[in-house]
Amino acid sequence: MARYRLTIEYDGEGYCGWQRQANGASIQQALEEAVARLDPGAPHVGGAGRTDAGVHARGQVAHVDLAREWAGWRLREAINAHLVDEQIAVVEASPVAEDFDARRSAVARHYRYVVVNRRAPLVFERGRAWRVKTPLRVEPMHEAAQVLIGRHDFSTFRDAQCQANSPLRTLDYLRVSAEGERVLFDVGARSFLHRQVRSMVGSLVEVGLEKWSGADFRAAFEAADRRRCGPVAPPDGLYLMRVDYPEK
Amino acid sequence: MARYRLTIEYDGEGYCGWQRQANGASIQQALEEAVARLDPGAPHVGGAGRTDAGVHARGQVAHVDLAREWAGWRLREAINAHLVDEQIAVVEASPVAEDFDARRSAVARHYRYVVVNRRAPLVFERGRAWRVKTPLRVEPMHEAAQVLIGRHDFSTFRDAQCQANSPLRTLDYLRVSAEGERVLFDVGARSFLHRQVRSMVGSLVEVGLEKWSGADFRAAFEAADRRRCGPVAPPDGLYLMRVDYPEK
Repeated sequence: MARYRLTIEYDGEGYCGWQRQANGASIQQALEEAVARLDPGAPHVGGAGRTDAGVHARGQVAHVDLAREWAGWRLREAINAHLVDEQIAVVEASPVAEDFDARRSAVARHYRYVVVNRRAPLVFERGRAWRVKTPLRVEPMHEAAQVLIGRHDFSTFRDAQCQANSPLRTLDYLRVSAEGERVLFDVGARSFLHRQVRSMVGSLVEVGLEKWSGADFRAAFEAADRRRCGPVAPPDGLYLMRVDYPEK
Repeated sequence: MARYRLTIEYDGEGYCGWQRQANGASIQQALEEAVARLDPGAPHVGGAGRTDAGVHARGQVAHVDLAREWAGWRLREAINAHLVDEQIAVVEASPVAEDFDARRSAVARHYRYVVVNRRAPLVFERGRAWRVKTPLRVEPMHEAAQVLIGRHDFSTFRDAQCQANSPLRTLDYLRVSAEGERVLFDVGARSFLHRQVRSMVGSLVEVGLEKWSGADFRAAFEAADRRRCGPVAPPDGLYLMRVDYPEK
């Protein structure tokens, strides 16, 4: 038995999310079925982040235990060969210590949220960004977001279905920047509450639209009350970019 | 009668190219049908560049004559409303002088060719980039390309079907650069021969793979002989980025 770490890219459109569900195609199920073609034990694939339906990944990380030993590159190619009909690719595979757990060992998760700020319909980023038609003010969004940095009660930005024990989280950074017609929200933390990124982005966009002042945003956050959250941003724009683990 | 200039974005996958053809859906036809819904005259939409099947555009330019007057933004929205089932969007529309001709008035065309240099199958750039699995050496490609700058006979990089009168063209720049796992070829000229960009890129990739030396590339180019061209790069990676016109 040997454990492997997989780095995975996927377009979440058309999937019900990372996690296996009774109804609907999940990323996890597609991966487990591909791995089952290589290993009679039909192993479990455990992921670092349970991305929602429609959310994408550039760098999801998962672990899997296989009966026989594989060179990393060979395992990557073998799994990808069974994913040709999916919008999923293993970009890296390597052997890891048997105590490596993609979810529990993670020390930081990095997400990017992509807004395309234009009137014209999306072509290349259809399903892969949130189109906001009204011009956004980027600097006020960035400034308002800085109140979130550090350890706080994120109840305002926590989905009602969130199963975490505590609403306390430590946000490492949240940067809002413009790149042509795109507005990027880059955010990192050890872990996030359910729909926290989309809730924060949706509320920041209220600031960018000048519907909320920076003080309104701060007050909504400090109220620690879900009813004070702005509209939750759609899943289309969200990408799990990278997961960090302790250096060996 | 008033003339309008349109800036157009499209994903070329699934189209037979810009130009109307007897068989197959073209970008031009989709646009002309959308415009016909606004104007009983069913006007002709003339484009700056005749992109091939599968080739994309971020900034194709076209002109069209309409019976009644339109504010630019209203025309853009009206055409886009009739393009909802297409992978095409008008990103800008504005009135222009009646002697403006998208093709003949153009003074420069800018293309980008995108290679994704990795083993793993493409997810987000499927159909939108050329995946080259073997590692490419970027600097030798950029250096080899510099021999193309200026006015030359581009017969080596000209498709057999090319209908231009002369194989002489003036290349303004060709820059090869790496951006993560992507390799970008940015190239500009007043005009290009048929499949010139894909022919140049395909031959440069031979240099990047170290199958050709820089001297081999130069010799192939200077031979001005189509039989010396390397494999033509697939359409998936090519984007018409921008077309320039004289300042008024």
